[in-house]
Amino acid sequence: MSSGTNHQVLLNSHPVGFPSDTDFRLVETPVPTPAEGELLIRTIYLSLDPYMRGRMNQGASYAKGVNLGEVMTAQTVGQVVSSKHNQFSEGDFVLSGNGWQDYAVSDGQGVRKLDPTVAPISTAVGVLGMPGMTAYVGLLDVGELKAGDNVVVSAASGAVGAVVGQIAGIKGCRVVGIAGAQKKCDYVTNELGFADCVSHRSETFPDDLKAACPDGIDLYFENVGGKVFDAVLPLLNDFARVPICGRIANYNMTGLPEGPNEVPRVMGLTLVRRLMFRGFIVFDHVARQGDFLRDVGGWIRAGELQYREDVVEGIDKAVGAFQGLLRGENFGKLLVRVSDDPTNRA
Amino acid sequence: MSSGTNHQVLLNSHPVGFPSDTDFRLVETPVPTPAEGELLIRTIYLSLDPYMRGRMNQGASYAKGVNLGEVMTAQTVGQVVSSKHNQFSEGDFVLSGNGWQDYAVSDGQGVRKLDPTVAPISTAVGVLGMPGMTAYVGLLDVGELKAGDNVVVSAASGAVGAVVGQIAGIKGCRVVGIAGAQKKCDYVTNELGFADCVSHRSETFPDDLKAACPDGIDLYFENVGGKVFDAVLPLLNDFARVPICGRIANYNMTGLPEGPNEVPRVMGLTLVRRLMFRGFIVFDHVARQGDFLRDVGGWIRAGELQYREDVVEGIDKAVGAFQGLLRGENFGKLLVRVSDDPTNRA
Repeated sequence: MSSGTNHQVLLNSHPVGFPSDTDFRLVETPVPTPAEGELLIRTIYLSLDPYMRGRMNQGASYAKGVNLGEVMTAQTVGQVVSSKHNQFSEGDFVLSGNGWQDYAVSDGQGVRKLDPTVAPISTAVGVLGMPGMTAYVGLLDVGELKAGDNVVVSAASGAVGAVVGQIAGIKGCRVVGIAGAQKKCDYVTNELGFADCVSHRSETFPDDLKAACPDGIDLYFENVGGKVFDAVLPLLNDFARVPICGRIANYNMTGLPEGPNEVPRVMGLTLVRRLMFRGFIVFDHVARQGDFLRDVGGWIRAGELQYREDVVEGIDKAVGAFQGLLRGENFGKLLVRVSDDPTNRA
Repeated sequence: MSSGTNHQVLLNSHPVGFPSDTDFRLVETPVPTPAEGELLIRTIYLSLDPYMRGRMNQGASYAKGVNLGEVMTAQTVGQVVSSKHNQFSEGDFVLSGNGWQDYAVSDGQGVRKLDPTVAPISTAVGVLGMPGMTAYVGLLDVGELKAGDNVVVSAASGAVGAVVGQIAGIKGCRVVGIAGAQKKCDYVTNELGFADCVSHRSETFPDDLKAACPDGIDLYFENVGGKVFDAVLPLLNDFARVPICGRIANYNMTGLPEGPNEVPRVMGLTLVRRLMFRGFIVFDHVARQGDFLRDVGGWIRAGELQYREDVVEGIDKAVGAFQGLLRGENFGKLLVRVSDDPTNRA
């Protein structure tokens, strides 16, 4: 742990298309000092998630963007270094929003204590955190999952997709994954119990997907958009539901695909097949957090739900790791270990 | 009433684009004779509805299409001429699916008796029939209407739209209609209590709609598609819902609009604004018929819900009336009076 120096990754310019190295700037600043009522948190794990690409854009998305020169936002797992806040003590493990930096001062708002004896602290930004809950509410509430549904999930081995597929399996559904690399497909079929998995990189991807879904698709959990969405569309059954969680393939688009404009066709199909498309964001579903932690926590403890983390070491690797995330290079929930995790002495 | 002759409108060719006169054929056949267990029904009112355009196409939509040489299908209100069916008697008024013809024989399946003392018999194919119930389930169930919603409905003075807007008003919503002709806009604002109505024929339509919806749109009841959909899209608020009931502007399209392909933009907006698009067909919601008849029947009796019929005289006018429907020329629920209505001696 560096003493006295805070490494920060700032947004240097709003990316146009794919974020380049120079859209970010790594700087060193003094470690801040907490005032009365504040606490200083050392970042241990920094969560990298696809939604961050939207925050890098100028202008509003569903959340405030990051301004130029500001520290990139992120959920983090950390440890309290010093506290002048009556609800936190030195040594506490906490979930907070430190962002892409070694240290942050907080007034305690939105900071949640973590008990390392209940679950590994890293899971608070993964399977038991925002990505896991995204899967839970997206599938059950937004997607109106029913037992027996033929479920397809894209980014199948990712932080959200892997949980989607396993919950669907637990709920009695047949699950087909879509992923890029063969090792990811092998993982979700061999380790996570998916019925099948197809690679969107295959030249025969639409046909492969069709073959993997002999009874069509009743629920498609949309994480990627692009050509994957196009291949799913004709396979949707009557009354299929499409919770739209992410569109990572489109996040770096600087223009629309060449015509014709398919909107009338998609909406016509929506009518005739009684489809539902519904966008959602996990933050709108906080009321379900208790249910989520009870259910998913229980499934993990019962060995019914697995998770996989892809941990990159060092905050200087954050930009490269995020670029890799947008290219689908991570394998499991992507984390940057910014400093030592004292709970993990393996 | 012609004795012995049954005028029938047959599908002569599958329309390509807008249906032409020669896509239909008016023929005379003998009036059929009911066998044991059957009844003969004289058509009084023939209901013309936009969904019929889909039935004229070759190949499947959500329902079986009409084959060449077959009588065009339609819901009808009629009277029993003779009955060898133990549940129907001569003189009974009934809702049935005679199609575009003077007479039909039925085995009683799907035939429902109508009590002319409860409501005018014509309403069984209108405000108290399929169009009214489409409005009811589309708005309340599919559209998840909430009090205070800013509601927009296209084809606002039509059989469905007029009921949508009035139910929304009863439920405490602000309603803006979209229609073509000025007299239709005047009708829905002056007679039906809509807050405002804009014409999609105006050159400034998108701006007019925006001005009429200062607080955006929380629920758009989609009847028309096309440019109206395009104008609505940017006005949709976070969490807006779009029940897709019809796309009449697109029914005669023979190709897709020139690019670029806007699907990624629409789906991106769906995610960021947490929109919902959901297609529906009233036949999937028969379980709600009791609720519908209780509620809408009650509102009509209480004078809270008005309806308007556009009655064309004579089966030989059916084709022209249907063409007019596709052009938006009808003003209210479109009916063809095929023969005398003995309950209406005005």
